[in-house]
Amino acid sequence: MILTLACPDRPGIVARVSAFLFERGGNILDAQQFDDEETGRFFMRVVFAGDESAETLRAAFAPHAEEFGMDWTLRDSKVKKRVMILASQQDHCLADLLYRWRRGELPMTLSAVVSNHAADTYAHLDLSGVPFHHLAVARDTKMEQEAALWKLIQETETELVVLARYMQVLSDGLAAKLEGRCINIHHSFLPGFKGARPYHQAHQRGVKVIGATAHYVTADLDEGPIIEQDVERISHRDTPRDLIRKGRDIERRVLARAVRWRLEDRVLLNGSKTVVFTD
Amino acid sequence: MILTLACPDRPGIVARVSAFLFERGGNILDAQQFDDEETGRFFMRVVFAGDESAETLRAAFAPHAEEFGMDWTLRDSKVKKRVMILASQQDHCLADLLYRWRRGELPMTLSAVVSNHAADTYAHLDLSGVPFHHLAVARDTKMEQEAALWKLIQETETELVVLARYMQVLSDGLAAKLEGRCINIHHSFLPGFKGARPYHQAHQRGVKVIGATAHYVTADLDEGPIIEQDVERISHRDTPRDLIRKGRDIERRVLARAVRWRLEDRVLLNGSKTVVFTD
Amino acid sequence: MILTLACPDRPGIVARVSAFLFERGGNILDAQQFDDEETGRFFMRVVFAGDESAETLRAAFAPHAEEFGMDWTLRDSKVKKRVMILASQQDHCLADLLYRWRRGELPMTLSAVVSNHAADTYAHLDLSGVPFHHLAVARDTKMEQEAALWKLIQETETELVVLARYMQVLSDGLAAKLEGRCINIHHSFLPGFKGARPYHQAHQRGVKVIGATAHYVTADLDEGPIIEQDVERISHRDTPRDLIRKGRDIERRVLARAVRWRLEDRVLLNGSKTVVFTD
Amino acid sequence: MILTLACPDRPGIVARVSAFLFERGGNILDAQQFDDEETGRFFMRVVFAGDESAETLRAAFAPHAEEFGMDWTLRDSKVKKRVMILASQQDHCLADLLYRWRRGELPMTLSAVVSNHAADTYAHLDLSGVPFHHLAVARDTKMEQEAALWKLIQETETELVVLARYMQVLSDGLAAKLEGRCINIHHSFLPGFKGARPYHQAHQRGVKVIGATAHYVTADLDEGPIIEQDVERISHRDTPRDLIRKGRDIERRVLARAVRWRLEDRVLLNGSKTVVFTD
Repeated sequence: MILTLACPDRPGIVARVSAFLFERGGNILDAQQFDDEETGRFFMRVVFAGDESAETLRAAFAPHAEEFGMDWTLRDSKVKKRVMILASQQDHCLADLLYRWRRGELPMTLSAVVSNHAADTYAHLDLSGVPFHHLAVARDTKMEQEAALWKLIQETETELVVLARYMQVLSDGLAAKLEGRCINIHHSFLPGFKGARPYHQAHQRGVKVIGATAHYVTADLDEGPIIEQDVERISHRDTPRDLIRKGRDIERRVLARAVRWRLEDRVLLNGSKTVVFTD
Repeated sequence: MILTLACPDRPGIVARVSAFLFERGGNILDAQQFDDEETGRFFMRVVFAGDESAETLRAAFAPHAEEFGMDWTLRDSKVKKRVMILASQQDHCLADLLYRWRRGELPMTLSAVVSNHAADTYAHLDLSGVPFHHLAVARDTKMEQEAALWKLIQETETELVVLARYMQVLSDGLAAKLEGRCINIHHSFLPGFKGARPYHQAHQRGVKVIGATAHYVTADLDEGPIIEQDVERISHRDTPRDLIRKGRDIERRVLARAVRWRLEDRVLLNGSKTVVFTD
Repeated sequence: MILTLACPDRPGIVARVSAFLFERGGNILDAQQFDDEETGRFFMRVVFAGDESAETLRAAFAPHAEEFGMDWTLRDSKVKKRVMILASQQDHCLADLLYRWRRGELPMTLSAVVSNHAADTYAHLDLSGVPFHHLAVARDTKMEQEAALWKLIQETETELVVLARYMQVLSDGLAAKLEGRCINIHHSFLPGFKGARPYHQAHQRGVKVIGATAHYVTADLDEGPIIEQDVERISHRDTPRDLIRKGRDIERRVLARAVRWRLEDRVLLNGSKTVVFTD
Repeated sequence: MILTLACPDRPGIVARVSAFLFERGGNILDAQQFDDEETGRFFMRVVFAGDESAETLRAAFAPHAEEFGMDWTLRDSKVKKRVMILASQQDHCLADLLYRWRRGELPMTLSAVVSNHAADTYAHLDLSGVPFHHLAVARDTKMEQEAALWKLIQETETELVVLARYMQVLSDGLAAKLEGRCINIHHSFLPGFKGARPYHQAHQRGVKVIGATAHYVTADLDEGPIIEQDVERISHRDTPRDLIRKGRDIERRVLARAVRWRLEDRVLLNGSKTVVFTD
């Protein structure tokens, strides 16, 4: 079982939570807490073993949560989250996520893979057992396509949407609906090189390190809460083409980490930032 | 206040500890737990704010600790630990620790700086305000020197001994006496290149990455529990002399991190390994 | 065109080579030299543009090479090398190499993919267009299997053999035949944790960083010249299972780099070490 | 001896240079070339051993250089460059450079250390043997102070100026005069977080990696050609104060690398970027 919570800090939170778990026969296996002294907000993630169902525990915990004003989740870690992956022509992140999913690295059920390109774009990927949807988009059909996308998200009971180098910008409305449950990979070390063609920008500027950023999607493009970043050294010998190649490696490992952490309830929103209880 | 504890795992530890802190008016600021499923041992570090003195809290906590069979510490984080640094001719780690100490990066009182070389070896370092001791050592005076060292450790009430590239091997007896409170920096990425001249060994083997290791000293040379390691890339162009230069940078930052973590009670012994609740 | 050479150092090597290229109408695009002062050996890699064929240039360069006692290669970088990949049950390196090959990251022709497991082991990988061979091996058929392997290497005119987590140890004889053209990925940061189950060894020892090593295969197991290494931080929370997962990421990027560098003639043998003219 | 050159690319440059060196009895020890296909500019650095003086070689090489339109330097690597360090209250970079200079890591003569604070600011640093100058600055004396600084640069025959966390912005005029020979350390991973208080900006944005940038000073603040960058991981636990502490470590190693490379003639200007022939 995994319990996460965020609430205004005050004495007694951990005592209350751990007493609750103890009384319910739970045994704490791993726990991390964080008190943001700037905002006065307290964050906690607890992994515990116990015999009661998530449903029973949630009902029993609700009064405590209300008393402390908690944003909280409590779920059975054996129940996999339903995840939708959105992709475009560049398939390295999609290929990587599919591979990790099949290897059992990502505890998720694929509710759908959606692309604005047809399935044969991914002829070399094994999409067997994956509900693939081609939702084409043109300048004047953007709204309709997004409506179809939102409908699909609801129908498939998708809990997390992953933009795996999906080259369409979500509308403000959809971004708002997916707050805290839509992860994008941006191919630069934000806040440097926002916007289009970041590797070309990086080459132009002559930086010596490039990076990638996984972040929650918000209405503000490339400004959402950052979940994970990583970098690699480059040199003057690297052409934009080399940066794109090296970047693919960074992007896929940054996105995979962010997705895994989110699936394991390690990522908590803290205003425009995140608290990430890494493993 | 910082509380650390390690004990056999069983349900209710966190509940007991947090209830205790809550009753005593403590507010948890930061906490990390770890349950080693292999050994069945539970580890915890809690930082909390409160009005009672460490002494009072210790007395009150003792019965709980006994009941759970805890190895534990509880201390006022404002009271600095007494640290002795041992050095030899190579002074880069000593210089770095002194600089960080003066900057306020390392919350410690220098109980002594001891060297087997005379003070003028460190003419370019500012030793003002530092109790410096020259304990020369020769092949046939090794035992006497160590006896003097041990006497000094006791007289100065030293709580932590740091071997900052101290080129003398401690006897098994002294190593045993200092178990869990003597940190050494080894200039290789252990377990690779144990023993003497590790950078020459690394050059000989043609590795592409070198590293350094901070570990607790035990009777088994270069086999003590590892606290921290870090690495740097090298290339075929690097001579042993280059490796030594690059290595100095790795050594000093690895040692500084290990010392700081130890001063902040973040390093707990777990058999032949460590649990490090990093920041 | 790419020219590589290694020879005893003496004045005039670069002058001779560059005069030769100039006279032949070549324009140097990239070049790196290295003089190993320890062994007195000089290494050079030159990329140049020109109109003459590799064959013509080789014939013309041969007398110069002989005069200087060079080990050398000169080839058209547009002609792809023929590469055989050997794999076993763990397919993450194979999957990664296949993906990069299809993306055009690895300038090679796949002469064969060989496994001691049947093709359906790789049901989720796209092996279309890949000459797959199942060469089963049992304790008492090891010699026969290796003979078949060697025959296949010859028949397919394989220039480079990549052991992509191939769990069979090559015999001394085959290792000798493949000197300088067989790359293995070892799942530890050599020379630490040689032999079997290195991630379990690493967990046991309590290291804080794990790594992987790509090296040339020699008769001495895990002792061949190192081409590339990389590492990742771990913590006390990581179980052997976590290390294996994290290790897969390191292994695949280390092996991919080593293979790409070898395909681009960036890796030159220097006794038991390598000179790698990285990009 | 070290020769560096940059010129429009055309066939025969390496041939001409290496023939010249060979005729003069030089033996190439290390060499790197780079052809920037975007700008059509060719860059080269050659380290060679020989008997003739730098002066003689320069005179002899000049006609060749002119013919090819080279920007070039040729100097005896045993002759140390004259370096001025500018510092303010934060002395970690100054302390680090002084330490490395004394250890022999930085082949330079200190022409001066200049601060806008009095010498007793650095009471814990050993300034013995260092020509220290206190050039105070106030809002209305900025021009006079800079004039004094420029005078001192000329009088001391300073070849390289290092801004070691010097908190004064140079005027456009002085920046122009020092083009290509004034290195600054900016405490962020440029182009992210330009301007003041970058660590506070980074904390505010919630990035997961921070960095530092060594770059040539130009009239455009924080926009000069980047020489070196490095980064470190951070987490939600890090306060701005922690970032500043961690940043000090990054800053000092990034600046030290940039300075050392510049002293060894490894850094060549390429428009608004640099070519760095690293070791």
